[in-house]
Amino acid sequence: MQFSSSLLENAVIEFAKLPGIGKKTALRLVLHLLKQDLSSVQGFSETILKMRQEIKYCQRCYNVSDADTCSICANLSRKQELICVVENIRDVVAIESTQQYNGLYHVLGGLISPLDGIGPSELNIEALVNRVPKEHTQEIIFALNPNIQGDTTVYYIQKKLKGTNVKITTIARGIAFGGELEYADEMTLARSISNRQPIENYMSK
Amino acid sequence: MQFSSSLLENAVIEFAKLPGIGKKTALRLVLHLLKQDLSSVQGFSETILKMRQEIKYCQRCYNVSDADTCSICANLSRKQELICVVENIRDVVAIESTQQYNGLYHVLGGLISPLDGIGPSELNIEALVNRVPKEHTQEIIFALNPNIQGDTTVYYIQKKLKGTNVKITTIARGIAFGGELEYADEMTLARSISNRQPIENYMSK
Repeated sequence: MQFSSSLLENAVIEFAKLPGIGKKTALRLVLHLLKQDLSSVQGFSETILKMRQEIKYCQRCYNVSDADTCSICANLSRKQELICVVENIRDVVAIESTQQYNGLYHVLGGLISPLDGIGPSELNIEALVNRVPKEHTQEIIFALNPNIQGDTTVYYIQKKLKGTNVKITTIARGIAFGGELEYADEMTLARSISNRQPIENYMSK
Repeated sequence: MQFSSSLLENAVIEFAKLPGIGKKTALRLVLHLLKQDLSSVQGFSETILKMRQEIKYCQRCYNVSDADTCSICANLSRKQELICVVENIRDVVAIESTQQYNGLYHVLGGLISPLDGIGPSELNIEALVNRVPKEHTQEIIFALNPNIQGDTTVYYIQKKLKGTNVKITTIARGIAFGGELEYADEMTLARSISNRQPIENYMSK
């Protein structure tokens, strides 16, 4: 792409660094911002920078937070003895958006993946293992992606928690609501048959 | 979406204001920026704001510019008597990227569209009409979209230029290179037959 203005070009280059944003999309976004009021663009620019400068990670669960402890951990009406283990912050947002979960979280910051050089010490696993006796945790729900990395991580943490009385569960896998049987992959379909549920569980939802 | 951090939420809201960016994409972009160095995010934030604060519109052709006159108009090795009329800045970038055009531009800032309340006075049409005698323009190439608004705009400007000796052309329409005949719309195919070219024109390209 050829630009007649270096100011425009630099802005396009910055946007095109973002994942999934190509140069054409970047140009479209920059020209959109160019048409906005100066105050809107100032708002955009300052909000992003403020977020990066001031955001903290919760000391307890490693979720993003405005303070040292995140609003979920600080909310005493949530079940303190239930921890949902997730890979990243996006998973917290996804589960919170269902408004059906009322326990705490633990954000691992990734999954064990020896091929990518990510071992247990790179993740927030030790902190999780320490939380269980300290917080008298009764149940840990694994909500990790069902791939080799996810399974390895579950297996590793499970071994680390041997000796504690904590109950370990994982979120249900199966055919999505509204999903068509014929389009489901074989693995999912096979597992959803072997993990079949009493019909009452289904009806009560 | 439910966020446990207002800093995160505000940043997502800002990104989601951009055209074509939904909340999920916005979250992905924000979490990407969160993982970058502070200096990178500062660079992003400052470049965008600087662009909005400092960019100018060329006094001659209304293209975006770092100075009062854009680098295209200021380049005396370009053909000063040839003006390509485009709707917006994106079209200038597209044509410049071909590296095949060596004249000047005139950015209208839109097309005449009475239904949207856009009349000739909202666009940079008068400035174009004034440029022709002043700059001794010999040819005006219309590179506008081939729809009602584009055709109306061409017709209006053409009428305004009556009495001058300027040659008026439009860019060629037809089947795209690499395009398949059977998938072309009827209008394009019909026009590309009626506007057929001597084979020499084709071979020399």
